[in-house]
Amino acid sequence: MLRNVVRRSNRRSDCPINFALQMFGDSWSLLVIRDLMFTDRRTYTDFLNGEEGMATNILAARLKQLQEHGLILKRGSGRGAEYALTQKGLDLLPVMLELIAWSGKHDRRTGAPKDFLARIKNNRSLVIAEIRAALAHRYRL
Amino acid sequence: MLRNVVRRSNRRSDCPINFALQMFGDSWSLLVIRDLMFTDRRTYTDFLNGEEGMATNILAARLKQLQEHGLILKRGSGRGAEYALTQKGLDLLPVMLELIAWSGKHDRRTGAPKDFLARIKNNRSLVIAEIRAALAHRYRL
Repeated sequence: MLRNVVRRSNRRSDCPINFALQMFGDSWSLLVIRDLMFTDRRTYTDFLNGEEGMATNILAARLKQLQEHGLILKRGSGRGAEYALTQKGLDLLPVMLELIAWSGKHDRRTGAPKDFLARIKNNRSLVIAEIRAALAHRYRL
Repeated sequence: MLRNVVRRSNRRSDCPINFALQMFGDSWSLLVIRDLMFTDRRTYTDFLNGEEGMATNILAARLKQLQEHGLILKRGSGRGAEYALTQKGLDLLPVMLELIAWSGKHDRRTGAPKDFLARIKNNRSLVIAEIRAALAHRYRL
């Protein structure tokens, strides 16, 4: 019975991996999180001009979903509107760093700086604390 | 020029986050990795019967892509064929644990066991080493 209610809520399962994946939607969503975490991109146009060439309808849908799930929020309106990470979005930092570490190991052409990869490997807690503090300051969390 | 070649190879960018996301394809791919990492599911039918209700055409496409990218491999053929993690796939363990930790924090209805969440938080390196060893043994890596 409860299981049926859960199904009707569009929740595929209570698995923690599945929950996280349903929150991000798809890889385009995680690229928006990446932009807000590691780049200076903040506006709709900024995201649209990212090197991966995201389509405008996909971007709009993902921004909406990320806001609904409480991972990002929008400040201001119109063309000047800027997006910001929430605490819930910022908490994805360790996931993102592990994705960077994995790609650094398995992608021969990776764009990840070698010294950053070494720091993630050798001083993980410190790197997380530093970036977390910087982002909390930037996004006034 | 090189950039054009890169584009033509279907590589959206050299960003390490993007690389990782292109490897997994989408959330269904990560659920297959999850099954191979944390459950006893090994066969096509096992994955198909997972609680998230993956469609058979999606599953087939994701298994093919994961094999092409070297994250999993297939042993045997026909209905008895079993899938296994490669070293590259196993290296996603820290990513998966961070996804579990994040969901454990932000999903009130999470299916993640509390003691496991506490172990990830307090003994991360040990948990990774233990699971890694168990999986390497299981998949003969």
